Amino acid sequence: MNNTYFTRRTIRKYEPRDIDGNLLERLLTAGTRTSTTGNMQVYSIIVTRDPEMKKLLAPAHFNQPMITQAPVVLTFCADFNRFNLWCRQRDAEPGYDNFLSFMTAATDALLAAQTICNAAEEEGLGICYLGTAIYNADKIIGVLSLPPGVVPVTTVTMGWPAEIPEQPDRLPLEAVVHYERYHDFTPGLIDELYQPREARKDSQQFISENNKATLAQVFTDIRYKKADNEYFSEKYLEVIRNQGFLFQ
Amino acid sequence: MNNTYFTRRTIRKYEPRDIDGNLLERLLTAGTRTSTTGNMQVYSIIVTRDPEMKKLLAPAHFNQPMITQAPVVLTFCADFNRFNLWCRQRDAEPGYDNFLSFMTAATDALLAAQTICNAAEEEGLGICYLGTAIYNADKIIGVLSLPPGVVPVTTVTMGWPAEIPEQPDRLPLEAVVHYERYHDFTPGLIDELYQPREARKDSQQFISENNKATLAQVFTDIRYKKADNEYFSEKYLEVIRNQGFLFQ
Repeated sequence: MNNTYFTRRTIRKYEPRDIDGNLLERLLTAGTRTSTTGNMQVYSIIVTRDPEMKKLLAPAHFNQPMITQAPVVLTFCADFNRFNLWCRQRDAEPGYDNFLSFMTAATDALLAAQTICNAAEEEGLGICYLGTAIYNADKIIGVLSLPPGVVPVTTVTMGWPAEIPEQPDRLPLEAVVHYERYHDFTPGLIDELYQPREARKDSQQFISENNKATLAQVFTDIRYKKADNEYFSEKYLEVIRNQGFLFQ
Repeated sequence: MNNTYFTRRTIRKYEPRDIDGNLLERLLTAGTRTSTTGNMQVYSIIVTRDPEMKKLLAPAHFNQPMITQAPVVLTFCADFNRFNLWCRQRDAEPGYDNFLSFMTAATDALLAAQTICNAAEEEGLGICYLGTAIYNADKIIGVLSLPPGVVPVTTVTMGWPAEIPEQPDRLPLEAVVHYERYHDFTPGLIDELYQPREARKDSQQFISENNKATLAQVFTDIRYKKADNEYFSEKYLEVIRNQGFLFQ
């Protein structure tokens, strides 16, 4: 397999030069060859290249600079709209206004997204995923004119890298991979898995900058707080409901 | 980019020979380099190679033969268990018992899954996604001993191809890709996008075998029925709740 899988890092700064239209189309075509449930292709990709549209999208992504700096922004959506229209036009009554169908469509969207990212990185492009697509899905729906049946699940910014950041550490394989049965984690194993990360200079700096006692507290108290998670959970469930996926 | 993206097809029949352990480990390592929210790596991969475990898993996948025939079965899970344990062990109170955190973790799991599939296909392996991981997540939790905080989101079977099926048709790019704003679909565009698929011999056969009037009816009345979707929606929401992601 190509080496990009192992050398990749998220890229947040991009050269001003554009992504060639043919290359972009090849990447999107690669994406559409990805596995999809029952060949339904229940997802859509909204391509943003227009600087004015990027400006409109930026607030939904908390004005992270990648949105306006990247030549291409891709919003991946769970999408039963097209499929439902086809069904109704063919004397078939769609039954996809439920949570399972949302998960099916979200899965389709995310798998296609990752194929496009892998293919893009193989071409030397850099990408960054933005979880804000979920946080502010309601705003994105407005800006991109998404009809009922369509819910943003992730956003990717893409461009030619203008930085080579240090590759982030990952936990040892043992933290993620389980053979045959889930091996739960003893306190000793948790220490063993996380201590190398906690000992890193950047982690130590992160802790002191944020006035915290442990690296975990930076996550729970600053980066991914309970109150925020609960607020955005409610909001996203409301979006899923409003877009027609929780009607039962 | 490598050509596999364009030539791939889902493989459901595998040669009896195993996948070398080093190759599998490289694939899993590639997976762990995939983008993950805040470098939290809130997912896990359960590797099933033991024939006895495959037999136990098979009913959860409606006994589709891929489960027992494939040398390797991978169950990808949204997983906040490890992260929560780490937080509690470091005087940090995790706030991840909510729907947003489930989506975050499910996204991590699905992106890693697709990287592993892309890398595997580049090596000549064949893969098949099984949506039944969601349908019968409760059973899988039992077989694989998944603790609270862990929810299966997809399963992949993997092995050396023993078939070269025809590559399935995909809709034209226009069906999936929208530039700048979502272009909704007129009845004329729906016809244009779907008629080539409907005219295929295999589609016609599919319709007549199932005693239906249209291809869409095969989906709505046979393959992905409203009643089933609603049943499995309830069941999966219950699993997500039981595993600790809908506590608010």
